[in-house]
Amino acid sequence: MHFDKDTIVALATAPGTAAIAVIRLSGTSAFDICNSVFTDKNGFPKKLSLQKSHKLHYGWICSDNSLIDEVIISIFKAPHSYTGENTVEISCHGSVFIQQKIIQVLINSGARPAKAGEFTLRAFLNRKLDLPQAEAVADLIASDSQASHLLALNQMRGGVSQKINTFRQQLIHFASLIELELDFNEEDIEFANRSDLKQLVGDLQNEIQPIILSFKEGDVLKNGIPIAIVGKPNVGKSTLLNALLDEEKAIVSPIPGTTRDAIEDEIIIEGVRFRFIDTAGIRNTTDEIESIGVSKTFQKIKHASVVIYMFDVMEITPDELLQSISELNVKQILVVGNKIDCLNGTELTKKFIDRIPEIIYISAKQRINIHQISNRLTELYSIDVINKNDTVLTNARHFEALKKTSTALERVNNGLNSNLTGDLLAADIRNALLHIGEITGEITTDDLLENIFNKFCIGK
Amino acid sequence: MHFDKDTIVALATAPGTAAIAVIRLSGTSAFDICNSVFTDKNGFPKKLSLQKSHKLHYGWICSDNSLIDEVIISIFKAPHSYTGENTVEISCHGSVFIQQKIIQVLINSGARPAKAGEFTLRAFLNRKLDLPQAEAVADLIASDSQASHLLALNQMRGGVSQKINTFRQQLIHFASLIELELDFNEEDIEFANRSDLKQLVGDLQNEIQPIILSFKEGDVLKNGIPIAIVGKPNVGKSTLLNALLDEEKAIVSPIPGTTRDAIEDEIIIEGVRFRFIDTAGIRNTTDEIESIGVSKTFQKIKHASVVIYMFDVMEITPDELLQSISELNVKQILVVGNKIDCLNGTELTKKFIDRIPEIIYISAKQRINIHQISNRLTELYSIDVINKNDTVLTNARHFEALKKTSTALERVNNGLNSNLTGDLLAADIRNALLHIGEITGEITTDDLLENIFNKFCIGK
Repeated sequence: MHFDKDTIVALATAPGTAAIAVIRLSGTSAFDICNSVFTDKNGFPKKLSLQKSHKLHYGWICSDNSLIDEVIISIFKAPHSYTGENTVEISCHGSVFIQQKIIQVLINSGARPAKAGEFTLRAFLNRKLDLPQAEAVADLIASDSQASHLLALNQMRGGVSQKINTFRQQLIHFASLIELELDFNEEDIEFANRSDLKQLVGDLQNEIQPIILSFKEGDVLKNGIPIAIVGKPNVGKSTLLNALLDEEKAIVSPIPGTTRDAIEDEIIIEGVRFRFIDTAGIRNTTDEIESIGVSKTFQKIKHASVVIYMFDVMEITPDELLQSISELNVKQILVVGNKIDCLNGTELTKKFIDRIPEIIYISAKQRINIHQISNRLTELYSIDVINKNDTVLTNARHFEALKKTSTALERVNNGLNSNLTGDLLAADIRNALLHIGEITGEITTDDLLENIFNKFCIGK
Repeated sequence: MHFDKDTIVALATAPGTAAIAVIRLSGTSAFDICNSVFTDKNGFPKKLSLQKSHKLHYGWICSDNSLIDEVIISIFKAPHSYTGENTVEISCHGSVFIQQKIIQVLINSGARPAKAGEFTLRAFLNRKLDLPQAEAVADLIASDSQASHLLALNQMRGGVSQKINTFRQQLIHFASLIELELDFNEEDIEFANRSDLKQLVGDLQNEIQPIILSFKEGDVLKNGIPIAIVGKPNVGKSTLLNALLDEEKAIVSPIPGTTRDAIEDEIIIEGVRFRFIDTAGIRNTTDEIESIGVSKTFQKIKHASVVIYMFDVMEITPDELLQSISELNVKQILVVGNKIDCLNGTELTKKFIDRIPEIIYISAKQRINIHQISNRLTELYSIDVINKNDTVLTNARHFEALKKTSTALERVNNGLNSNLTGDLLAADIRNALLHIGEITGEITTDDLLENIFNKFCIGK
């Protein structure tokens, strides 16, 4: 990767008008560039390169002798900064005009606008963090539930990297022994004990497999568990959503302005985001004309982690219900009988509870037994999974690379079983190492880095 | 004003997801509260009250032994902070979830959510800035053109305050002399020389009047000059707007993402915002049915600072044109003949230029002579006005208070002319002082302060 030594600048805080905004400047010339536009409160320049790191300075940003803003600047000296380079953060008044003006004068003084993710890319290139940690920074910024936050935080603190690095060190050890054999090829010496290698490959597979499997859960915990609520019209689907939302709202939000409210069909229960998928149309299964709509609904059901099948206790018989459920044919189903307030206890017990006790009986309207649904969802998808396992995979790139690593290891294992020669074994081990190295960023290509950091916001 | 000693907390940067966000904590207990949730990178607490002011500390925000985010905190010790109180600024990852979580744990540790403008209110109450300066902070944050930026900056640096304070000191001097006379009432002594007072009142009026008059210009420079473009359909109004916009775009915006582009009818020319007002409908002046629409148009024309009357050189005779213009009856008019590319030079000269040379002849489509319009607008409304006059009034509150001051002074003057007794003169001077003191905030009421600071954003 070509390492650009330019000094880069970008707005680091969210765009828009606010009390303050922060502009970040990073690179070898960061202090000199800032120097040329910054004066202390008396209008005297301040030699920033002579100041101590981690200090705040009050003063003014000026250009061509005209004042732009009263600011506080933060000094971070290389390597003690996020990027590992000299860095200045300018905290200015949060007017969009002022933000642009300051960025403009810094550009005029020699900085250039940062590309998306370029600050974090530099942090990676300066070995302040490895690739999964860099990726976790983006995840952390995007995190919007306790689960996604916790997953990103674990990854940023090196959860994934440590595991992968241990695997890598062990493989490198054996790879180097086998490579050594190749140098002494004609002498037919085995430096690498084959049964030790077989043992190692087996151990690695045993450790890698659960991590690969953790992706399925990690992915939905990070992005929200897709839940399909299925049921005829007017069984009370949106009333249930409101009831679930109300229950959580009361717990979650003493701070005004939680954004979640705007997204109707997403509910965070005990820190986990559940995405409720609209599946209107299930009623027309017998209607040929609308079969396209129905097949779409079944597509959605297929992609859901859980299907909530909701029915009206007044409108259906237990036999019809059991029939409908068996037709659905899904892995994880939660059957919910609504409108129990319309039947008296004896009727309800006689008609349903005695016959199908495992169903959750609720009144969405009267908010009865709603917590049973949220409890059940929380049992299925809980942040405890993250707390119990230090390595839960959430990144599709890591998932793919680990699968490839596993396949390569499988080939190494097969090779060992069939007494493959050292050079062929070495090729398979190298292949495993390549994929494992791609995860931590020991092995990178420009394309890979561009692909990763392009997804960042500008300013990070 | 009841001075609340609570420690307040709010997000100081714009809401939304970004690289970083800054949370501000201010009050006597700011350090203790932050202490209870902040540890250094090794998990040890850091006694923030023992740290030096204006220092940055790297560490973690935690709650109940679980990590929330890796942060940089800035320490400002009273009185060396924006508010004049102990202040901590926490720079965290810009996830909305993390922002809320950190604010939440600070609230749990004893802070309370800040009200709109409460940080600046505290700065005012702690005498870090006076009322016009506090108001200028809000103006600065809202500033969106060079003109509004410059006006706010001048006011924040004390432009208005200094002038007003000088007036006030002079008046106080005389008021105290007259009050002294009242104490010696029975002895009929004149401490305050009446002709000196008359001179002073005259001088003050001479200084106050131009400042009052400056409001009209200051107000539109701050909020945008309303320009009505009047003309029949298809004379090329929107082509002209695009042409003006294009011309400025090329000069103004090497930075991506200028917000201005989104607002179709506002154009910043040489740092001044012009708001173009839609006046479709002028064609129907003779049509009785649509007379309501027309009267609305004339209302808009009335509120415009400048009217651009645009016509198509192909569609109208000079006599008709002169007739139309005289009917408009507006103060500031710019007559623009469009589509000169449709006539050859000889025809145009013969038909119009020779007869009405003061008109601007353009081709909006071919971008000919567009700069003549922007030049003319810039001649009428230029930021030079701000540079030349240190006190340009932009605040309606100051304007009203100064008018009342002037009226009170007028009464003092009349009183002096009719040899009014000291106690009555004193009452009028006190009245003038009251209004002048309201401007700088020497005299405030809770209502006034609430009114001013309510308009701020939360976090400032």
